[in-house]
Amino acid sequence: MSYYNNPGGYRPPPQSQGSQYGAPPPGYGQQGGPPPGAYGQVGGYQYAPPQQNRPPAAPQPPPGADQQLYFWFQAVDTDKSGALTTEELQKALINGDWSPFNIETVRLMMNMFDTDNTGTITFQEFAGLWRYIEDWKKCFQTFDADGSGTINFAELKNALRTFGYNLSDNFINLLIKKYDKYGGKKNAGKGDVTFDNFVQSCVTVKTLTDAFRRYDTDNDGWILINYEQFLELVVNNR
Amino acid sequence: MSYYNNPGGYRPPPQSQGSQYGAPPPGYGQQGGPPPGAYGQVGGYQYAPPQQNRPPAAPQPPPGADQQLYFWFQAVDTDKSGALTTEELQKALINGDWSPFNIETVRLMMNMFDTDNTGTITFQEFAGLWRYIEDWKKCFQTFDADGSGTINFAELKNALRTFGYNLSDNFINLLIKKYDKYGGKKNAGKGDVTFDNFVQSCVTVKTLTDAFRRYDTDNDGWILINYEQFLELVVNNR
Repeated sequence: MSYYNNPGGYRPPPQSQGSQYGAPPPGYGQQGGPPPGAYGQVGGYQYAPPQQNRPPAAPQPPPGADQQLYFWFQAVDTDKSGALTTEELQKALINGDWSPFNIETVRLMMNMFDTDNTGTITFQEFAGLWRYIEDWKKCFQTFDADGSGTINFAELKNALRTFGYNLSDNFINLLIKKYDKYGGKKNAGKGDVTFDNFVQSCVTVKTLTDAFRRYDTDNDGWILINYEQFLELVVNNR
Repeated sequence: MSYYNNPGGYRPPPQSQGSQYGAPPPGYGQQGGPPPGAYGQVGGYQYAPPQQNRPPAAPQPPPGADQQLYFWFQAVDTDKSGALTTEELQKALINGDWSPFNIETVRLMMNMFDTDNTGTITFQEFAGLWRYIEDWKKCFQTFDADGSGTINFAELKNALRTFGYNLSDNFINLLIKKYDKYGGKKNAGKGDVTFDNFVQSCVTVKTLTDAFRRYDTDNDGWILINYEQFLELVVNNR
């Protein structure tokens, strides 16, 4: 067995349903286009009715795209460039209490899903990101055992153990302290980790564990690393 | 000689003069209080004239405080709480091109100077922070050899070598790529590192080097570190 007790690696639940985390604020998603259902659907593809006698066409979702999601994308693409900047993406990503995601988590998402490395998110990339967030939402709700809308020490410990990470209470406390900080230092340690910070802390543990493992070739939980390798490893993972 | 070739550690120049980096935007600092010079100065201390026949008193700077700096502090303390939140502090910290500091650098400063750990910056703490920024400004201007207002690869390499860090071109390139990212990925690697990102990258190299050294007891540039020590070290330094 691996030192980390995590043979399969962690993953958020594969399937997702709608819920309040990460969902567009009320009233969004319907604006800037026809109401849901205005277009017919054939075999999962949408097509638009003939254009004659109609006002100038709103941008159409690509074939096969989720219509709601496409109009939501349009609504936050305020400069109508067809791609979201970090700031536009932040407006699209909402916590359970309607607060926007902290900018670090938005950058994390941007880096993960900006696959063509343009610094912006196309609709195609956004759709992948959205599914990922939906999966995390389900995950968050599963581990938020008391339904408080935030994750406390015991819930984070349970989540990370379930993902296969073998971590001490000391380290979980450090994570809570770090990822609880946006709520104000005075409340730090109380464990009110919001959805965005929960995702950020779990992704951090995953990427750091993956990075450590690449050095831990004999899988004994210890690595020998030199100064510049260490600097590179840390800078690459922040 | 140490592996790092950095016996004394790095430090920004100790003395500082005013300049455009980090300076309050025009019009600030004079608002919310009497114009500069309205109060007499005796031996470096300020005192206020008698209060009779005057409008309600503006908050007075503490004895010995820099008057300009105090009124600038008042101007950004928008909720008049007597202490700056991270968001208020961000408004006080300006790059050479008048753009606000990125929030990560603001948090870095907050963590360094919030000595009583309240999550806010008192005027006393702010004065220390300001001197620190002024020192960095001088430092930035010294290394911005072409006077472009940003730091490029050669300039960053020179700065880090002067601070005593023995780093490869590869790693400097990684730093440039990381700390240039807020200018948009398309320009990444061209080396337009602004003042805030320059400070962030230098402080990052310093804190990571210090952290590495605590493990490198025989000073040979290699450390043996276990999984949780590694996680703690990285999470503590971000």
